Amino acid sequence: MATKQIIEEGLEFTPKFDENGLIPVIAQDVKTGQILMTAFMNRQALDLTIQTGYATYFSRSRRKLWKKGEESGHLQKVEQILVDCDQDCLVLKVAVDAGQCHVGYQSCFYRTLKKGSDKELEFIAEKIHNAKKD
Amino acid sequence: MATKQIIEEGLEFTPKFDENGLIPVIAQDVKTGQILMTAFMNRQALDLTIQTGYATYFSRSRRKLWKKGEESGHLQKVEQILVDCDQDCLVLKVAVDAGQCHVGYQSCFYRTLKKGSDKELEFIAEKIHNAKKD
Repeated sequence: MATKQIIEEGLEFTPKFDENGLIPVIAQDVKTGQILMTAFMNRQALDLTIQTGYATYFSRSRRKLWKKGEESGHLQKVEQILVDCDQDCLVLKVAVDAGQCHVGYQSCFYRTLKKGSDKELEFIAEKIHNAKKD
Repeated sequence: MATKQIIEEGLEFTPKFDENGLIPVIAQDVKTGQILMTAFMNRQALDLTIQTGYATYFSRSRRKLWKKGEESGHLQKVEQILVDCDQDCLVLKVAVDAGQCHVGYQSCFYRTLKKGSDKELEFIAEKIHNAKKD
Protein backbone atom coordinates (compact mmCIF):
# COMPACT_ATOMS: atom_id res chain seq x y z
CA MET A 1 0.00 0.00 0.00
CA ALA A 2 1.42 3.35 -1.03
CA THR A 3 2.15 5.78 1.76
CA LYS A 4 0.63 9.24 1.88
CA GLN A 5 3.93 10.77 0.85
CA ILE A 6 4.35 8.49 -2.16
CA ILE A 7 0.79 9.21 -3.26
CA GLU A 8 1.20 12.96 -2.82
CA GLU A 9 4.76 13.50 -3.95
CA GLY A 10 5.59 10.50 -6.09
CA LEU A 11 5.58 9.96 -9.82
CA GLU A 12 3.46 6.83 -9.90
CA PHE A 13 -0.08 7.29 -11.16
CA THR A 14 -2.25 5.42 -8.65
CA PRO A 15 -5.77 6.80 -9.10
CA LYS A 16 -7.97 5.99 -6.16
CA PHE A 17 -11.31 4.52 -7.12
CA ASP A 18 -14.02 4.69 -4.47
CA GLU A 19 -16.01 1.79 -3.00
CA ASN A 20 -18.06 1.71 -6.21
CA GLY A 21 -14.96 1.59 -8.37
CA LEU A 22 -15.37 5.19 -9.53
CA ILE A 23 -13.26 8.34 -9.55
CA PRO A 24 -14.70 11.83 -10.11
CA VAL A 25 -13.46 13.69 -13.18
CA ILE A 26 -13.68 17.36 -14.11
CA ALA A 27 -13.58 18.28 -17.80
CA GLN A 28 -12.03 21.69 -18.39
CA ASP A 29 -11.78 23.48 -21.73
CA VAL A 30 -8.06 23.53 -22.53
CA LYS A 31 -8.39 26.83 -24.40
CA THR A 32 -10.64 28.91 -22.17
CA GLY A 33 -10.21 27.25 -18.77
CA GLN A 34 -13.99 26.97 -18.46
CA ILE A 35 -15.18 24.02 -16.38
CA LEU A 36 -17.50 22.11 -18.70
CA MET A 37 -18.86 19.20 -16.68
CA THR A 38 -18.11 16.63 -14.04
CA ALA A 39 -18.58 12.89 -14.36
CA PHE A 40 -17.15 9.60 -13.15
CA MET A 41 -14.79 7.02 -14.57
CA ASN A 42 -14.21 3.43 -13.63
CA ARG A 43 -10.89 1.76 -14.39
CA GLN A 44 -12.01 0.68 -17.85
CA ALA A 45 -13.26 4.15 -18.78
CA LEU A 46 -9.94 5.65 -17.69
CA ASP A 47 -7.98 3.07 -19.68
CA LEU A 48 -10.07 3.74 -22.77
CA THR A 49 -9.62 7.48 -22.34
CA ILE A 50 -5.84 7.08 -22.14
CA GLN A 51 -5.72 4.65 -25.05
CA THR A 52 -8.04 6.50 -27.44
CA GLY A 53 -7.32 10.10 -26.48
CA TYR A 54 -11.03 10.83 -26.18
CA ALA A 55 -12.96 11.08 -22.91
CA THR A 56 -14.95 8.01 -21.93
CA TYR A 57 -16.91 8.10 -18.69
CA PHE A 58 -19.00 5.65 -16.71
CA SER A 59 -22.66 6.56 -16.54
CA ARG A 60 -23.96 5.82 -13.07
CA SER A 61 -27.61 6.05 -14.16
CA ARG A 62 -27.19 3.81 -17.19
CA ARG A 63 -24.56 1.60 -15.54
CA LYS A 64 -22.36 1.54 -18.60
CA LEU A 65 -19.42 3.11 -20.36
CA TRP A 66 -20.24 6.34 -22.09
CA LYS A 67 -17.99 7.87 -24.69
CA LYS A 68 -18.78 11.55 -24.37
CA GLY A 69 -20.24 12.82 -27.63
CA GLU A 70 -20.84 9.38 -29.09
CA GLU A 71 -24.44 10.34 -29.82
CA SER A 72 -24.26 14.12 -29.92
CA GLY A 73 -20.98 14.37 -31.80
CA HIS A 74 -19.53 16.66 -29.12
CA LEU A 75 -16.43 14.60 -28.41
CA GLN A 76 -13.80 15.65 -25.90
CA LYS A 77 -10.25 15.34 -27.20
CA VAL A 78 -8.04 14.89 -24.18
CA GLU A 79 -4.94 17.07 -24.15
CA GLN A 80 -3.85 16.48 -20.56
CA ILE A 81 -4.88 14.41 -17.54
CA LEU A 82 -4.13 16.00 -14.17
CA VAL A 83 -4.42 14.27 -10.82
CA ASP A 84 -4.77 15.89 -7.42
CA CYS A 85 -2.61 15.52 -4.32
CA ASP A 86 -4.33 12.44 -2.89
CA GLN A 87 -5.05 11.02 -6.36
CA ASP A 88 -8.80 10.72 -5.84
CA CYS A 89 -9.88 13.24 -8.48
CA LEU A 90 -8.87 13.90 -12.10
CA VAL A 91 -8.97 16.99 -14.31
CA LEU A 92 -9.14 16.41 -18.05
CA LYS A 93 -8.03 19.31 -20.19
CA VAL A 94 -10.08 18.83 -23.32
CA ALA A 95 -10.44 20.36 -26.76
CA VAL A 96 -14.12 20.64 -27.63
CA ASP A 97 -16.54 22.10 -30.11
CA ALA A 98 -19.76 23.86 -29.11
CA GLY A 99 -22.44 22.62 -26.74
CA GLN A 100 -21.02 20.26 -24.16
CA CYS A 101 -24.03 20.15 -21.84
CA HIS A 102 -27.09 18.06 -22.73
CA VAL A 103 -29.36 20.97 -21.78
CA GLY A 104 -27.91 22.97 -24.66
CA TYR A 105 -25.23 25.12 -23.10
CA GLN A 106 -21.49 25.08 -23.69
CA SER A 107 -20.91 24.18 -20.04
CA CYS A 108 -23.11 22.45 -17.45
CA PHE A 109 -22.35 25.41 -15.18
CA TYR A 110 -24.63 27.95 -16.87
CA ARG A 111 -26.24 29.37 -13.73
CA THR A 112 -24.92 31.28 -10.75
CA LEU A 113 -26.37 32.02 -7.36
CA LYS A 114 -27.55 35.64 -7.38
CA LYS A 115 -25.50 38.01 -5.27
CA GLY A 116 -27.15 38.48 -1.90
CA SER A 117 -29.48 35.51 -2.32
CA ASP A 118 -29.26 31.96 -1.07
CA LYS A 119 -32.14 30.71 -3.20
CA GLU A 120 -32.25 32.45 -6.54
CA LEU A 121 -30.19 31.59 -9.59
CA GLU A 122 -29.47 33.60 -12.69
CA PHE A 123 -28.35 32.44 -16.11
CA ILE A 124 -24.86 33.43 -17.18
CA ALA A 125 -24.85 31.78 -20.60
CA GLU A 126 -26.85 31.50 -23.78
CA LYS A 127 -28.10 28.23 -25.21
CA ILE A 128 -26.12 26.96 -28.14
CA HIS A 129 -28.39 24.13 -29.24
CA ASN A 130 -31.59 22.36 -28.28
CA ALA A 131 -30.36 18.81 -28.43
CA LYS A 132 -31.05 16.62 -25.43
CA LYS A 133 -28.27 14.16 -26.06
CA ASP A 134 -25.09 13.93 -23.97
CA MET B 1 -40.30 17.23 -5.63
CA ALA B 2 -38.86 19.37 -8.36
CA THR B 3 -39.04 17.99 -11.86
CA LYS B 4 -35.99 17.48 -14.01
CA GLN B 5 -36.92 20.50 -16.10
CA ILE B 6 -37.33 22.79 -13.11
CA ILE B 7 -34.00 21.63 -11.69
CA GLU B 8 -32.23 22.07 -15.01
CA GLU B 9 -33.88 25.18 -16.39
CA GLY B 10 -35.38 26.90 -13.38
CA LEU B 11 -34.14 29.77 -11.24
CA GLU B 12 -34.53 28.10 -7.87
CA PHE B 13 -31.30 27.05 -6.20
CA THR B 14 -31.96 23.50 -4.98
CA PRO B 15 -28.53 21.93 -4.43
CA LYS B 16 -28.73 18.17 -4.21
CA PHE B 17 -26.90 16.71 -1.25
CA ASP B 18 -26.04 13.03 -1.48
CA GLU B 19 -27.02 10.26 0.94
CA ASN B 20 -24.32 11.54 3.31
CA GLY B 21 -25.64 15.08 3.13
CA LEU B 22 -22.72 16.27 1.00
CA ILE B 23 -22.27 18.01 -2.34
CA PRO B 24 -18.96 18.09 -4.25
CA VAL B 25 -17.44 21.51 -4.81
CA ILE B 26 -14.71 22.66 -7.18
CA ALA B 27 -12.72 25.77 -6.25
CA GLN B 28 -11.50 27.67 -9.31
CA ASP B 29 -9.22 30.70 -9.28
CA VAL B 30 -11.42 33.56 -10.48
CA LYS B 31 -8.45 35.33 -12.09
CA THR B 32 -6.58 32.52 -13.83
CA GLY B 33 -9.26 29.86 -14.27
CA GLN B 34 -6.97 27.31 -12.62
CA ILE B 35 -8.77 24.52 -10.77
CA LEU B 36 -7.37 24.69 -7.25
CA MET B 37 -9.01 21.86 -5.33
CA THR B 38 -12.14 19.86 -4.82
CA ALA B 39 -13.92 19.27 -1.53
CA PHE B 40 -17.38 18.69 -0.08
CA MET B 41 -19.94 20.86 1.65
CA ASN B 42 -22.88 19.95 3.80
CA ARG B 43 -25.85 22.30 4.08
CA GLN B 44 -24.29 24.18 6.97
CA ALA B 45 -20.98 24.67 5.19
CA LEU B 46 -22.81 26.02 2.14
CA ASP B 47 -24.89 28.39 4.28
CA LEU B 48 -21.77 29.67 6.03
CA THR B 49 -20.03 30.14 2.70
CA ILE B 50 -22.94 32.19 1.37
CA GLN B 51 -23.28 34.20 4.58
CA THR B 52 -19.60 34.96 5.16
CA GLY B 53 -18.35 35.16 1.59
CA TYR B 54 -15.47 32.80 2.41
CA ALA B 55 -15.35 29.10 1.50
CA THR B 56 -16.22 26.70 4.30
CA TYR B 57 -16.15 22.98 3.55
CA PHE B 58 -17.01 19.83 5.42
CA SER B 59 -14.01 17.63 6.14
CA ARG B 60 -14.99 13.99 5.67
CA SER B 61 -11.89 12.70 7.49
CA ARG B 62 -12.28 15.01 10.47
CA ARG B 63 -16.10 14.98 10.35
CA LYS B 64 -16.37 18.71 10.91
CA LEU B 65 -16.73 22.07 9.28
CA TRP B 66 -13.51 23.41 7.87
CA LYS B 67 -13.07 27.04 6.93
CA LYS B 68 -10.47 26.85 4.21
CA GLY B 69 -7.36 28.70 5.30
CA GLU B 70 -8.41 29.01 8.92
CA GLU B 71 -5.06 27.57 9.99
CA SER B 72 -2.89 28.30 6.99
CA GLY B 73 -4.20 31.79 6.31
CA HIS B 74 -4.93 30.88 2.67
CA LEU B 75 -8.59 31.88 2.70
CA GLN B 76 -10.81 31.64 -0.36
CA LYS B 77 -12.90 34.75 -0.99
CA VAL B 78 -15.94 33.63 -2.94
CA GLU B 79 -16.75 35.78 -5.94
CA GLN B 80 -19.34 33.52 -7.57
CA ILE B 81 -21.11 30.22 -6.91
CA LEU B 82 -22.07 28.24 -10.02
CA VAL B 83 -24.28 25.17 -10.07
CA ASP B 84 -24.47 22.53 -12.77
CA CYS B 85 -27.45 21.32 -14.77
CA ASP B 86 -28.70 18.72 -12.31
CA GLN B 87 -27.63 20.81 -9.30
CA ASP B 88 -25.45 18.11 -7.76
CA CYS B 89 -22.11 19.92 -8.08
CA LEU B 90 -20.91 23.46 -7.36
CA VAL B 91 -18.09 25.59 -8.74
CA LEU B 92 -16.78 28.35 -6.49
CA LYS B 93 -14.92 31.12 -8.25
CA VAL B 94 -12.52 32.30 -5.60
CA ALA B 95 -9.94 35.00 -5.06
CA VAL B 96 -6.89 33.54 -3.38
CA ASP B 97 -3.34 34.26 -2.39
CA ALA B 98 -0.48 31.80 -2.91
CA GLY B 99 -0.35 28.16 -1.92
CA GLN B 100 -3.81 26.63 -1.85
CA CYS B 101 -2.76 22.97 -1.57
CA HIS B 102 -1.54 21.54 1.75
CA VAL B 103 1.37 19.85 -0.04
CA GLY B 104 2.75 23.28 -0.90
CA TYR B 105 1.55 23.98 -4.42
CA GLN B 106 -0.79 26.66 -5.65
CA SER B 107 -3.24 24.01 -6.86
CA CYS B 108 -3.82 20.41 -5.77
CA PHE B 109 -3.50 19.49 -9.45
CA TYR B 110 0.28 19.82 -9.74
CA ARG B 111 0.94 16.59 -11.64
CA THR B 112 -0.04 15.32 -15.05
CA LEU B 113 0.00 11.88 -16.59
CA LYS B 114 2.99 11.71 -18.94
CA LYS B 115 2.14 11.62 -22.63
CA GLY B 116 2.16 8.06 -23.86
CA SER B 117 2.16 6.57 -20.37
CA ASP B 118 -0.63 5.18 -18.24
CA LYS B 119 1.46 4.96 -15.10
CA GLU B 120 3.97 7.78 -14.89
CA LEU B 121 3.30 11.29 -13.65
CA GLU B 122 5.28 14.46 -14.10
CA PHE B 123 5.21 17.65 -12.08
CA ILE B 124 3.85 20.73 -13.80
CA ALA B 125 4.25 23.20 -10.95
CA GLU B 126 6.77 24.47 -8.45
CA LYS B 127 6.26 24.38 -4.71
CA ILE B 128 5.33 27.68 -3.19
CA HIS B 129 5.65 26.79 0.47
CA ASN B 130 6.40 23.87 2.75
CA ALA B 131 3.48 24.18 5.11
CA LYS B 132 1.45 21.07 5.73
CA LYS B 133 -1.70 22.83 6.82
CA ASP B 134 -4.85 23.08 4.68
